Amino acid sequence: MKPVNHIKIRKTLTVNELIKQMGSSGVLGAGRLGKAVNICEAMLNDRQCKVFLGLAGPLVPGGMRDIIIDLMENKWVDVVVTTGATLTHDLGEALGYRHYQGNADADDAELHKKGLDRIYESYMPNNIYEGMEDFIASHFEQLKDKKSIKEFLWELGRLTPNKSILKACFENKIPVFCPAISDSGIGLMVWGQLAMGKEIETRAFEDLKEIIDIAWTAKKAGVIYFGGGVPKNYIQQAMQLAPKMASYGVQVTMDRPEPGGSSGAELKEGISWGKMNPKAKFVDVICDATIAMPIIYAALKERI
Amino acid sequence: MKPVNHIKIRKTLTVNELIKQMGSSGVLGAGRLGKAVNICEAMLNDRQCKVFLGLAGPLVPGGMRDIIIDLMENKWVDVVVTTGATLTHDLGEALGYRHYQGNADADDAELHKKGLDRIYESYMPNNIYEGMEDFIASHFEQLKDKKSIKEFLWELGRLTPNKSILKACFENKIPVFCPAISDSGIGLMVWGQLAMGKEIETRAFEDLKEIIDIAWTAKKAGVIYFGGGVPKNYIQQAMQLAPKMASYGVQVTMDRPEPGGSSGAELKEGISWGKMNPKAKFVDVICDATIAMPIIYAALKERI
Amino acid sequence: MKPVNHIKIRKTLTVNELIKQMGSSGVLGAGRLGKAVNICEAMLNDRQCKVFLGLAGPLVPGGMRDIIIDLMENKWVDVVVTTGATLTHDLGEALGYRHYQGNADADDAELHKKGLDRIYESYMPNNIYEGMEDFIASHFEQLKDKKSIKEFLWELGRLTPNKSILKACFENKIPVFCPAISDSGIGLMVWGQLAMGKEIETRAFEDLKEIIDIAWTAKKAGVIYFGGGVPKNYIQQAMQLAPKMASYGVQVTMDRPEPGGSSGAELKEGISWGKMNPKAKFVDVICDATIAMPIIYAALKERI
Amino acid sequence: MKPVNHIKIRKTLTVNELIKQMGSSGVLGAGRLGKAVNICEAMLNDRQCKVFLGLAGPLVPGGMRDIIIDLMENKWVDVVVTTGATLTHDLGEALGYRHYQGNADADDAELHKKGLDRIYESYMPNNIYEGMEDFIASHFEQLKDKKSIKEFLWELGRLTPNKSILKACFENKIPVFCPAISDSGIGLMVWGQLAMGKEIETRAFEDLKEIIDIAWTAKKAGVIYFGGGVPKNYIQQAMQLAPKMASYGVQVTMDRPEPGGSSGAELKEGISWGKMNPKAKFVDVICDATIAMPIIYAALKERI
Repeated sequence: MKPVNHIKIRKTLTVNELIKQMGSSGVLGAGRLGKAVNICEAMLNDRQCKVFLGLAGPLVPGGMRDIIIDLMENKWVDVVVTTGATLTHDLGEALGYRHYQGNADADDAELHKKGLDRIYESYMPNNIYEGMEDFIASHFEQLKDKKSIKEFLWELGRLTPNKSILKACFENKIPVFCPAISDSGIGLMVWGQLAMGKEIETRAFEDLKEIIDIAWTAKKAGVIYFGGGVPKNYIQQAMQLAPKMASYGVQVTMDRPEPGGSSGAELKEGISWGKMNPKAKFVDVICDATIAMPIIYAALKERI
Repeated sequence: MKPVNHIKIRKTLTVNELIKQMGSSGVLGAGRLGKAVNICEAMLNDRQCKVFLGLAGPLVPGGMRDIIIDLMENKWVDVVVTTGATLTHDLGEALGYRHYQGNADADDAELHKKGLDRIYESYMPNNIYEGMEDFIASHFEQLKDKKSIKEFLWELGRLTPNKSILKACFENKIPVFCPAISDSGIGLMVWGQLAMGKEIETRAFEDLKEIIDIAWTAKKAGVIYFGGGVPKNYIQQAMQLAPKMASYGVQVTMDRPEPGGSSGAELKEGISWGKMNPKAKFVDVICDATIAMPIIYAALKERI
Repeated sequence: MKPVNHIKIRKTLTVNELIKQMGSSGVLGAGRLGKAVNICEAMLNDRQCKVFLGLAGPLVPGGMRDIIIDLMENKWVDVVVTTGATLTHDLGEALGYRHYQGNADADDAELHKKGLDRIYESYMPNNIYEGMEDFIASHFEQLKDKKSIKEFLWELGRLTPNKSILKACFENKIPVFCPAISDSGIGLMVWGQLAMGKEIETRAFEDLKEIIDIAWTAKKAGVIYFGGGVPKNYIQQAMQLAPKMASYGVQVTMDRPEPGGSSGAELKEGISWGKMNPKAKFVDVICDATIAMPIIYAALKERI
Repeated sequence: MKPVNHIKIRKTLTVNELIKQMGSSGVLGAGRLGKAVNICEAMLNDRQCKVFLGLAGPLVPGGMRDIIIDLMENKWVDVVVTTGATLTHDLGEALGYRHYQGNADADDAELHKKGLDRIYESYMPNNIYEGMEDFIASHFEQLKDKKSIKEFLWELGRLTPNKSILKACFENKIPVFCPAISDSGIGLMVWGQLAMGKEIETRAFEDLKEIIDIAWTAKKAGVIYFGGGVPKNYIQQAMQLAPKMASYGVQVTMDRPEPGGSSGAELKEGISWGKMNPKAKFVDVICDATIAMPIIYAALKERI
């Protein structure tokens, strides 16, 4: 048995120096966060390993956008699965809008009058929809024939005027999947076109071929989840088809396991399903994503 | 100000008699559960109100299937949005499989050898996929031309040999939406067909027309959420287009609001977005869905 | 393996009829709540078993006071451990004050001006302290020589003018422990006397003799926890000295286990400590106490 | 309105450099953690401010012991309130025992046979009690006449052979309060002496005079809570007597507010009680203490 080592802070520490001490403490939140960095490092250094990243929750309104873009530009991940909301927030910022620091106790009726959509304590200006409507409308011809959601999203990334998560995915040829894209502001803007009698061919099941093919042909696979929802579950599902299941896993969530939903399920549950290899290195970190993501990324940046 | 009335249990109580006392206590979990029943009752008795039901989480493995089927057969709801997992679990049971009482501390590697997929403390037999594969394969011709996911699901309901949530939706003409259907066992079975070179036309954005049309034309709207995820968010999004937004709202969740995700967001946040009417009657109940759903339904059954 | 039985609500159900079905469903929140009632029933029917009840959280402002008094008057429990806050709320009501239905979003500065102390969404009128100060001051002579906290509390119960939890404990000779009594409104009122130069003999460690003696001489022991905190931990500690440890255990909490604190710890953790018998019947119910307590009590009332 | 600034990690960052960016992002977990450091800094730099620190949860088995000792040796805090468990874990380590890195999924019955007491995923060797029993027994004469729990604890600190939290409190004359000291391993060891017929004078209410006097005479007060329980509540109670209430507040917890208990209550609730000044700077950080504490302390160390 290893003793719990007490963290010592005697001088200025870099994030990675602190994280190493957390890993050495070995237990509870600190120990798990330290372990998460070690597993990410092993995963990224394993040349045979395809890295699947699942992103859910308000990461863009939470200030994580540049880190996510970095991850793409570094080519640290091979597949991204995310929510329509994240892509909407990202596109909004690419079109020049910003999210704002707000107040969780604000009067929501007042916010509504001011055109501010509240996301816990950040605000999205509602006029983001106007810019997005114009953008989707003016490019609908390029989008409407995309057979898969991924092709639709890559095209959106290609068209995006400024730096964005979608553009970084497109430019670095990282497949980005979003099964529930219709459940988002982008979806609403597409609906606006459909409501005018237009059509869009994009198929609901089409992307399964690509994500499962990537999993199927991967010598090894690793999964990283910030938040749960469809992004986590869609990757987990693909792992069922990966020859060796996932060999690495890191999950960061605030959801609890007892209600039984996929979002809060411990990674070990995936072993029963044949999603996670029984010999995999994995860890569940119960932490706010906006705290864990910058710490994990800063520590990895020092190491790699 | 109303005083907190202490709950008195002097004799055998029906569920509704207890719930009335909880409502009269007025505060915390009990008060909110009581209020939830009152709001559901008002919503169901309001002839002008279209009721949108969002279902996420392991409700079928959690023993809620017959209650959900009842809700459809009673025609108490006008729209259902759910996850692919719920429809997969439902279809599995309709094909003769069962879920089993399990153990959250079981050895997942052992379960994997036995072909049992763990959902916290319930088990799904993995051979459910075999029956489902046969079923989808043998009916693929009827499914492959469905333009919308809802049409695909209604057809699945029509084809289902036994009672099921999907069949109840089909037979009672209740639109059932599942934006992320590809993220599920049903999705995997469809992929199996695609992998053999077949095609399926079902479009990703198509259903938006129908759900938004229902919201748009509703004189009033009410929302009931068990769990969050895409089902909640997809209904919330439709409420943005409802002329009066939602006039009633009940949410049952174990997710917390601070991480900022849609699943844990308090209903009042929707006011800022124009999803929830500032004058709406609504309540957030922080409770396991498998506890709250039978209680709410049993109390409503006594009242209506 | 037992299949998950789906709950069927075909007609008016009593609380116990519903709970039996929840128990038969076998899993997740519903299954655990059903199991909790079964374990409580077995514990109460086991003549050899001493029942230790731990109560934490705002049970009195949450409407649970009459149920708790009933438990004492029924002599269903042999030992109670609770918080100073619960006893303060109880004493306040015994002195004629009430708690009020409030609003979690109220302006706390406004409430302060109105003399309303907020407990999430219930309010305690601040003038409760005035009545309590008079009460403690006028009876300080009878209280100041009590050697143990339990004797202090029984005397308080004896002196209480109306029905109360403390009075029910006193009258039914149920030992009531509150190690952190100084951390409460009652504590503040005692401090008021000390500030005037008076003294109170009550000793901090004295009660350990009695609670451990009860545990030590119990043929069997059972524990029921609503909330965690000191009440749970103090009982758990006594179980270490019970010859057979706890043979039955029911815990109702909303705290999660991962931070590692006693309040959220799963009951099984107690096995490692020698607090819980490895063969004990026990269950953790993740549920708001104000929801679970009336349901469990109503179901038990029907059965016993 | 301030925009959400996206965190940029372009090079090696110190912890404080990262925290500043988190603070600048402004929202959700990251923003709150950044704000917590700013408030702690302001509190520590305010010469008029008395700092009250509440510590609950398994901080010593979680690797935080040296940080806590540092806080005392730096004289950054004026009052500490903690749990008996923390002081027991601390004393155990001072006597030469260690805590160990464990496994939350371990077989608790096996651990019991091996004499390992599980605290989520850390282990305390049960033989810690033997050393502690000897220590308390051999020093009981010096302890038994201490009139207050604080005096008892300072004496324990004085007697402790090695560096410890208690010794650091004693040596730096920092009052350390523990209302529920009887609810702990130390309490059990004292009980062992009582069981042999000895007596201990320590009084339950005595410390109220000192903590309230410190609050009463403080020109300004600040509160820092890691975890809730009695430590938080006991400080909050003292704030009711502070002339200006608390002017600064930082709370780190994983408990949620809706069940209504003190541990999960948002700091703003304290405004209604007159515990928190309506103009105070305060923040609730929803985070594991073992993650937040080293980060906050490392950032402060760089700044101060």
